[in-house]
Amino acid sequence: MAATSRAWYFAARPEGEPDLDCFDLRDHEVPDPDPGQLLVEVRYLSVDPYMRGRMRDSESYAEPWEVGDVLQGIVVGEVVESEHDRFETGDLVTGEGAWAEHSLLDAHEVAPVDPRVADPPAYLGALGMPGRTAYFGLLEVGDPKPGDTVVVSGAAGAVGSVVGQIATLNGCHVVGFAGSDEKTDWLTEDLGFDAAINYEATDDYRAALEDAAPDGVDVYFDNVGGPITDAVFTKLNLDASVAVCGQIAHYNDEEVPMGPRKLPMLIAPRASVEGFLVGDFSGRFREASEQLAEWVASGQIEHRETVVEGLDRAPEAFLGLFAGENIGKQVVQVSGPDA
Amino acid sequence: MAATSRAWYFAARPEGEPDLDCFDLRDHEVPDPDPGQLLVEVRYLSVDPYMRGRMRDSESYAEPWEVGDVLQGIVVGEVVESEHDRFETGDLVTGEGAWAEHSLLDAHEVAPVDPRVADPPAYLGALGMPGRTAYFGLLEVGDPKPGDTVVVSGAAGAVGSVVGQIATLNGCHVVGFAGSDEKTDWLTEDLGFDAAINYEATDDYRAALEDAAPDGVDVYFDNVGGPITDAVFTKLNLDASVAVCGQIAHYNDEEVPMGPRKLPMLIAPRASVEGFLVGDFSGRFREASEQLAEWVASGQIEHRETVVEGLDRAPEAFLGLFAGENIGKQVVQVSGPDA
Repeated sequence: MAATSRAWYFAARPEGEPDLDCFDLRDHEVPDPDPGQLLVEVRYLSVDPYMRGRMRDSESYAEPWEVGDVLQGIVVGEVVESEHDRFETGDLVTGEGAWAEHSLLDAHEVAPVDPRVADPPAYLGALGMPGRTAYFGLLEVGDPKPGDTVVVSGAAGAVGSVVGQIATLNGCHVVGFAGSDEKTDWLTEDLGFDAAINYEATDDYRAALEDAAPDGVDVYFDNVGGPITDAVFTKLNLDASVAVCGQIAHYNDEEVPMGPRKLPMLIAPRASVEGFLVGDFSGRFREASEQLAEWVASGQIEHRETVVEGLDRAPEAFLGLFAGENIGKQVVQVSGPDA
Repeated sequence: MAATSRAWYFAARPEGEPDLDCFDLRDHEVPDPDPGQLLVEVRYLSVDPYMRGRMRDSESYAEPWEVGDVLQGIVVGEVVESEHDRFETGDLVTGEGAWAEHSLLDAHEVAPVDPRVADPPAYLGALGMPGRTAYFGLLEVGDPKPGDTVVVSGAAGAVGSVVGQIATLNGCHVVGFAGSDEKTDWLTEDLGFDAAINYEATDDYRAALEDAAPDGVDVYFDNVGGPITDAVFTKLNLDASVAVCGQIAHYNDEEVPMGPRKLPMLIAPRASVEGFLVGDFSGRFREASEQLAEWVASGQIEHRETVVEGLDRAPEAFLGLFAGENIGKQVVQVSGPDA
């Protein structure tokens, strides 16, 4: 195309809490797709807490971003140029792309977006990576039985909101921690959580848990860490399992955070705690996606996206994750009918 | 018999570190066995770190001792009166008894002691509950593969010394933490550990681990907790597993101990951490005992007991556990040929 469009570049590594100085919006030349690639006009862009890890100059499960790179993330886009015969101009697809108006996607790595199943942004949330994270983390790592009490932190987030609903579908007693009454109301009134605790409205998480989870905790799906997690660990039942999905309370820490030692709490209940990454289940993504699409299409799983409009506001949307500004999945609408 | 003999009574619950005031040696009437019971003259008595938990006035996996109770523990004894036809006077048996010169044992709960396999005190160590704890904790919870690096804390103790040797038999690279050069020498020179770290001789456990476990840690068998465990968690490999057997560094804590938060360290390596109790494997005790007896008889597993002589010194032997005074299994010789 040889036209130019805008993209966000990684300007500086943050120390502690990131800010707008970490990001730089610049024009770049719209690239031409190589064989096997698709050029898309980005409709929606996903911002996710794990991206904070990519801002660090250290090896981890996700490759660190280098200063000067275009920022990467999952997008939903409309194909404007296809170098793969499975896709044509006008198709809606989702895959790993860029924080940009135009992005190249690898045709072998994208999935189709079907607006008849759900609005396109859902493909960044309940029908995307967060949904699959919830699916495998809960069912394979947490592995609750009907009647179990399942507690979820970050329960009104993209992952947590799906975790709780899958647990409900599995006949569990489901308790969520979230950071506002609007969020906890959503969990209990719309999503079928049995109880939800607004952690901003109480300091005594243990007492709140006694009320909300009187039979103790069988499965804890942890997105957050910190004092919420400390409280949950005091209530673990025999053979409890803890699925460690995220620890957003600690992503901006520069020092190793301190807290109550938890290993002594694991012996009497014979509890297990396991970190996991959704990528380890990539061989079963199709199964998860089909099941999630079925649940969403039938209304058994509800989803919600918090949409920030305009590519220029993408850093703001990302930073808002750490302030808990999103309900459901945080996305950025870059273009499209209503942008 | 209606004679009297001596027994230790629980005199007072400790706060923090227990001391001799917690114990009271008194005469009591030697009880008569009921049908199904054996009266034994106690030869050896086991003192174990988990007993500290029984001194607390709180529910846990082991029933709390009540002040005024005779203290309980596993003993090796010689049957002096049998009310069960499987046993006769003179038999050596082991089972749950009392810190006493004479004890009643339930004939259905005892195991025979065969001096041809090992000296009787070994039935309180490598051939007893500590050996079975090592067997199931390592093989079922830790589950190392040949070539894995296995790290053990409390490696020169009753459990740890067997853990390391079973790991060696399984083709693992084995590293132990212990608290003196005498202990680390025993581990590397006699027990076949690949490396051993004297934690009293260095403050930099991470650097010591870099040397001793250059390929990182695949399985960590933790008896101790505290700073050793903090260091090991920074070296966990992909899919590492941590078997939490004990946390002796924390048993005397009255407040919840604080330390580096470990959940954030579990995500990138997808590590799992699991508390366990040997009692959960009781259906397989025979298998473990037979295998351990075979290994001990063939010399593939060496064992050692630290023997304190005299029932009157039993509290001292127990308290010595928290100062790391034992090498191998700490036992008290109550009577017998050399007592």
